[in-house]
Amino acid sequence: MSIAIPQLPKGTRDFYPEAERIQNYIFDTWRKVAESFAYEEYEGPMFEHLELYTGKSGEEIVSQLYNFKDKGDREIALRPEMTPTLARLVIQKARELKKPFKWFSMPRLFRYEKAQKGRLREFFQLNMDIIGTESIYAEADLLASIATMLRKFGLKDSDFAIGVSSRKLLATYLEEIGAPNPALVYPVLDRRLKIGPEAFAKALTEAGLSEAQIKQLDDFMSCKSIEEVRAAVKSENATAALKEIEDLFATLAAAGFSECVNLDLSIVRGLAYYTGIVFEVFDKGKSMRAIAGGGRYDSLTEKLGGDRIPGVGFGMGDVVLADLLRERGLLPSPKQHVDFYIASFTNDMKKIFETAQVFRANGNSVSHPLATMKMGKQLEQANYQGASIVVYVDGDKAAAGQFEYKDLRDGTMHVGDVAAIVEQLKA
Amino acid sequence: MSIAIPQLPKGTRDFYPEAERIQNYIFDTWRKVAESFAYEEYEGPMFEHLELYTGKSGEEIVSQLYNFKDKGDREIALRPEMTPTLARLVIQKARELKKPFKWFSMPRLFRYEKAQKGRLREFFQLNMDIIGTESIYAEADLLASIATMLRKFGLKDSDFAIGVSSRKLLATYLEEIGAPNPALVYPVLDRRLKIGPEAFAKALTEAGLSEAQIKQLDDFMSCKSIEEVRAAVKSENATAALKEIEDLFATLAAAGFSECVNLDLSIVRGLAYYTGIVFEVFDKGKSMRAIAGGGRYDSLTEKLGGDRIPGVGFGMGDVVLADLLRERGLLPSPKQHVDFYIASFTNDMKKIFETAQVFRANGNSVSHPLATMKMGKQLEQANYQGASIVVYVDGDKAAAGQFEYKDLRDGTMHVGDVAAIVEQLKA
Repeated sequence: MSIAIPQLPKGTRDFYPEAERIQNYIFDTWRKVAESFAYEEYEGPMFEHLELYTGKSGEEIVSQLYNFKDKGDREIALRPEMTPTLARLVIQKARELKKPFKWFSMPRLFRYEKAQKGRLREFFQLNMDIIGTESIYAEADLLASIATMLRKFGLKDSDFAIGVSSRKLLATYLEEIGAPNPALVYPVLDRRLKIGPEAFAKALTEAGLSEAQIKQLDDFMSCKSIEEVRAAVKSENATAALKEIEDLFATLAAAGFSECVNLDLSIVRGLAYYTGIVFEVFDKGKSMRAIAGGGRYDSLTEKLGGDRIPGVGFGMGDVVLADLLRERGLLPSPKQHVDFYIASFTNDMKKIFETAQVFRANGNSVSHPLATMKMGKQLEQANYQGASIVVYVDGDKAAAGQFEYKDLRDGTMHVGDVAAIVEQLKA
Repeated sequence: MSIAIPQLPKGTRDFYPEAERIQNYIFDTWRKVAESFAYEEYEGPMFEHLELYTGKSGEEIVSQLYNFKDKGDREIALRPEMTPTLARLVIQKARELKKPFKWFSMPRLFRYEKAQKGRLREFFQLNMDIIGTESIYAEADLLASIATMLRKFGLKDSDFAIGVSSRKLLATYLEEIGAPNPALVYPVLDRRLKIGPEAFAKALTEAGLSEAQIKQLDDFMSCKSIEEVRAAVKSENATAALKEIEDLFATLAAAGFSECVNLDLSIVRGLAYYTGIVFEVFDKGKSMRAIAGGGRYDSLTEKLGGDRIPGVGFGMGDVVLADLLRERGLLPSPKQHVDFYIASFTNDMKKIFETAQVFRANGNSVSHPLATMKMGKQLEQANYQGASIVVYVDGDKAAAGQFEYKDLRDGTMHVGDVAAIVEQLKA
């Protein structure tokens, strides 16, 4: 051929049926668990006006966006995250929406980044958010959802860790030790474990902290228990922030999640808009990127031009999650399955179509030949498609209203009516 | 507020939970029926290299695309239809894929067009395709799927009409009457009913047809039955094309679809790549745009640079379908529903979270207060969220392992254990 077919765009994925079945398994599980926690699904457009993103994250976000001018000269960007759209929806109907409410979405997102293990340019991300309450039980609800979801995927509590920290606690501690300019400090704290102690100290020195302050901060972020933190902090505000974490942990323990949730003050989260609890979920051993991450953002709607409406939420991407489940052998079989395959010795296509329709009435999946072919080929197709039962429309042992049928799962032959065959399927 | 929040981009939609429940009802029904016909789901990236679309439809398509250069200087376009992606997937694995196969997808699509009733810039479209067979029973399978789907949505056979025509038949007839340059003629035939008889005759004259040829063609396209067509055509090729339609109709009649499928030679379909049967689905009375449309495209993969692999398929958009179902009162309630609401007189949040988790174990949806509030407020929230049963974690009439609970559907109060309460839900 002289023309070459264009390739799949870099950093995106094709989902042939086997891959799509895995995707649907992930989406179904996300949706089922989110709905079991009474979250309501919402969606938005695939692109937004560029200002929605620069308004939340500043101009530097543009380098990571798929942005362009549309034919009406509007500055448009494919959504890189769902939270700005969520904030827009909330602001637009701030008065009508009965608060608090719990929403989830499973958006496709787009980021123009270097594609690598666990990170693609186009991916899916479960988002769950609770809007309209400052109560710490909103955090408890979200963390319980995450743990329930990961269990539902077959992971054990010892397979993952939900690390919890608090921006509020960190802020009060920075205040306590007299650290200047916290806005400059957070991005450094966020990179603490990645860059190592020396670079960490250097960056904090540049941010204006003294050697003593750096030492205090490093010790503080290494605290592994609420008791250790309690011993380190003095102010009333810090004590209040700590009390919040205690309530959160006690509630989660009562609901059976103490094994997979732990205090981890090394978690900061890069984004500027977090105002309270922040959390990240990793596989135990942190061999992969984060499975999920989120936190409280009580001033986001205000920042975007609306009233102040508190919120808390998280995102869980499909790529790292699927990698982890694949590594643990927890993904389901990607093979096709159909309930019935309608076959005919005489290639009676009318009878085939008529009978297929009868078996579909029960909501079952039904396949059949689409052209005349020998019985051997029909059975081969039935097997290939993973059919449970082959129904012969013109088997000579069948009487009126009855069919010969073969259960491919155990190889047995039977004769019976539609009801009997549907019953056999359930066996 | 001094900053104004950016608006929803023109021609796109927000899906608040009530709207999203309707969308999910449509998607679920599409998926269920497609799977009952043993179609396998696939997906692709949301954008492709621009050449994939210009290669199929020519440069004129660009004016209707959301296209742009990405940060790697690639010419990219948001997908305006799914067929080019499908063709790419098929070509890429032409040898591995066991043919014939039946695939479906429910892509989001983007077209930069004037937004109006039934037509948006961003929409969803069910696509079902059968690849790898020239058999007319592939068409039968697709049309049976469409009719079954519209019935599943609650429409009666008298509510819609699937009009069927054949490009092959039309081509043989054009040959028979000696019409020159069929490629110029098809677009005119496609607009016949829209532009009226005079403009139709004028356009065909410009395409080189004589008055007699125009009369013959107009008569031919007005044929309402196979018998009328048989009387009009002479050539062997035309007879063969007609035989195909006869087989198709006889098969669909045997499967119970004779009332909603009819011959309609006025259907041509604008796209150049159709090679055989073409069809369109309208509400009876044609008060709206087409609900669905499709046809056979046996040379598409070849045109895109692959081997010749026959195919046939259709698209069904969400916008017109939802308008029609709404007009007929066939959309489900968009209200929230949860199975259980866990309430507490003493605001015992630990007990609430613990109990909620117990009721979720059965796959049920469970809500509860997220902050301390009076029982009146809790019941108000339970009602607002459409809860079936309120479970009181600390009602004083309950014994160990038992709960007081209220069935909000009939207002009755009970006491029982978890199993009894789950049983009550099913009542």
